[in-house]
Amino acid sequence: MRNIKLTVSYDGAGYHGWQRQENALSVQEVLERAIARCTNEKVNLIGCGRTDTGVHAKAYICNFHTESKIPAERFVYAINAGLPDDIVCLASEEMPEEFHAKYSAKKKRYTYYIQNSEFPDVFLQKRAWHIPQKLDVSAMQRATEAFVGTHDFVGFASTGFSVKTTVRTIESLTVTKENNRIIIDVVGNGFLYNMVRIITGTLFFVGVGKLRAEDMKEIIASCDRTRAGITAPPDGLFLTEVYYEA
Amino acid sequence: MRNIKLTVSYDGAGYHGWQRQENALSVQEVLERAIARCTNEKVNLIGCGRTDTGVHAKAYICNFHTESKIPAERFVYAINAGLPDDIVCLASEEMPEEFHAKYSAKKKRYTYYIQNSEFPDVFLQKRAWHIPQKLDVSAMQRATEAFVGTHDFVGFASTGFSVKTTVRTIESLTVTKENNRIIIDVVGNGFLYNMVRIITGTLFFVGVGKLRAEDMKEIIASCDRTRAGITAPPDGLFLTEVYYEA
Repeated sequence: MRNIKLTVSYDGAGYHGWQRQENALSVQEVLERAIARCTNEKVNLIGCGRTDTGVHAKAYICNFHTESKIPAERFVYAINAGLPDDIVCLASEEMPEEFHAKYSAKKKRYTYYIQNSEFPDVFLQKRAWHIPQKLDVSAMQRATEAFVGTHDFVGFASTGFSVKTTVRTIESLTVTKENNRIIIDVVGNGFLYNMVRIITGTLFFVGVGKLRAEDMKEIIASCDRTRAGITAPPDGLFLTEVYYEA
Repeated sequence: MRNIKLTVSYDGAGYHGWQRQENALSVQEVLERAIARCTNEKVNLIGCGRTDTGVHAKAYICNFHTESKIPAERFVYAINAGLPDDIVCLASEEMPEEFHAKYSAKKKRYTYYIQNSEFPDVFLQKRAWHIPQKLDVSAMQRATEAFVGTHDFVGFASTGFSVKTTVRTIESLTVTKENNRIIIDVVGNGFLYNMVRIITGTLFFVGVGKLRAEDMKEIIASCDRTRAGITAPPDGLFLTEVYYEA
């Protein structure tokens, strides 16, 4: 069986997340249907991870096995022909048999966009979190330091997940401001359920003065979900890159 | 009667243009309903001009007369409370009686976004024209020169309009490239029906080599619609600014 890797971008606003499920439309289901139309085989698409309802992807990675003779680099065109406007395949390539979109992934980058202005930007509907309050960006930046490194992030996870360990390593976490846009960028070896959205909601609390940057280290160490901030809405969250062994 | 000026931004994808009409939803109708909810009066909103189905506005200007006692700067909040997510009021101010959003306008700026890359960007759906072909941007830039100044632009207008004259003055027309984005920006004292979209479609023809930049002067002078390029789709077009007497 050949092993085909796909790079996919999608606007998550119209989907109940990545993962296939009964009674709700997922990105995985739509992609599997488009692939099956090309290969005439039953497809089991392996994703690099779940994304929640409304979360977007700039470069989601997935792979599938096939007996099809379609040249690897042609899959991108064949699949796009069967996709709606809010999902696009950006690349297709043949991988060694052992490549697995989820288990081979070394780290991931997520980017969260906040639109910080009095009135919402209609062109960022469902693609940014509109926050009208004034945010102390430099306090948010100071708060990021405590997150970097290896910590038990159980206090920054929603319940309803099952994982072997809640320890994760964050390689970098930055907050930058470009005009009315505040961009939170995080790279880590893995993320717990809702972890990026809870980090964002916590940085928001720091930005509005509900939490102090200086207390962040202790809040993380407390492993207490109630000490962190709110879960930011999914709209502003983008999976931007998945890293594999070079 | 008080005269209130509104600055409005809207995502045109969900509307049959600005202008109120039977059997189709317009931005004007939705705004008038939101205003009427605040003033309890029948509202006749005067727009700075028509925008076509699917065309967007970053700062559309309109005005209305009212007996309402609401302070001018509070209208923006009151009206926004009754608007859907794809229309937002950005400012409200009281104007002299003679201010008229259309007749007082001295010039307008439109911006057209082209997304020039092999695959469409899902986040620019309905907000840019996706062109996969390679475009000769420097030829497009050379072609802009012929448009600047006062010309009869009847060859760059769709039929179905009635105007006293088809002579218009273009103050500036620029083409810039930022990564995969090509931005066409035009300022003029007025624009004929579909004029910006036909200028864009003509620059596209120059970009792909179907027309030559050197022939543009003659094409404009010919006043012949068939000599110009296609009418670009509405998706990439934004009304970005309306200028009034200082």
